Amino acid sequence: MTVTVIVRKIEVVGRWEPDARGRLASAAMALYGERGFDNTTVEEIAARAGLTERTFFRYFADKREVLFGGAHELQEFLVAHVLEAPAALSPLEVIATAYMSAGDDIFEARRDFSRARQAIIAANTELQERELIKLATLNAALAEALRRRGVGDSAASLAAEAGGSAFRLGFERWIEDTKGKPMSTFIRELLDELKAVAAGE
Amino acid sequence: MTVTVIVRKIEVVGRWEPDARGRLASAAMALYGERGFDNTTVEEIAARAGLTERTFFRYFADKREVLFGGAHELQEFLVAHVLEAPAALSPLEVIATAYMSAGDDIFEARRDFSRARQAIIAANTELQERELIKLATLNAALAEALRRRGVGDSAASLAAEAGGSAFRLGFERWIEDTKGKPMSTFIRELLDELKAVAAGE
Repeated sequence: MTVTVIVRKIEVVGRWEPDARGRLASAAMALYGERGFDNTTVEEIAARAGLTERTFFRYFADKREVLFGGAHELQEFLVAHVLEAPAALSPLEVIATAYMSAGDDIFEARRDFSRARQAIIAANTELQERELIKLATLNAALAEALRRRGVGDSAASLAAEAGGSAFRLGFERWIEDTKGKPMSTFIRELLDELKAVAAGE
Repeated sequence: MTVTVIVRKIEVVGRWEPDARGRLASAAMALYGERGFDNTTVEEIAARAGLTERTFFRYFADKREVLFGGAHELQEFLVAHVLEAPAALSPLEVIATAYMSAGDDIFEARRDFSRARQAIIAANTELQERELIKLATLNAALAEALRRRGVGDSAASLAAEAGGSAFRLGFERWIEDTKGKPMSTFIRELLDELKAVAAGE
């Protein structure tokens, strides 16, 4: 009796589909890769996933959100790690350590998705611009988090932006790597390279 | 007789207007500042300048180009300076020196324009995004110029991006400064601060 009631409730909200979100995301990524982002419609994504357009819009505001929906989660993760980092770390080390933790806790499980996403974005100017804006927003949020730790105004921006560059380039190496090295290793390499560049080497 | 011929030639091309470009740019900047970028039309800019819309489009592709038309010139200037910098300079010093030269040779004469432009852009999200894209394009071009000097792939990106951050923050200090200090002084300050940040201070 109880079971029947629950099933009815779900039917009112919409037909229940196992992992609808994941199926829609996979279908979207496959189509973006095959035809390009611009040449893919929500109708096609839904059809490929065996679901309806209405179901798509229950999980994603638009086509772009399949690619950029994780930005908020990443920003919250990084800001929390910056605020909680040991006081002894320098501002740049705080930023780099936060990105290394994101590598371990967020990105490692999503290497295939990240690789596919990178290729889709590289093929589309508008998406590249959106990615730039996302990274700039992230830099600004991390600079603000450093200021809340007492770091000076411009030092906070410089550390967040330089750390962001090390992350982006480390991310690219990680995407290209075929040996399964963790992202944090690449970020550490880039951080060391950044220190050398700043020291005038 | 010769004079008459010349005047006729000009009339074929369009009514001659002294400094039409400058008058249109000034009118546009004044209107963007008064009403905001989005609330200003080309018709209004032309009317304020005492010229026609057709004349506006002879000098600018659209409203935005009044603000971003100088990007190409700046990029060419910086790339040339990076390529011609003394071999003894480190990659980061090469970038910083190029920006300092741009400060002296391009920006100092345009402090009022730069200040007005900054305020207009700060008030409009779309223009801020355009500015980000412009700066990222500049970073990529300067990284490429460093590579042509023989700098390694990621060191070139790190130096161009860190130098770009020092420029942007130095530019902001210069805009806010009321004592007429040259932009190059501010860029040097930020560069020193960047070195301290990278050294873990």
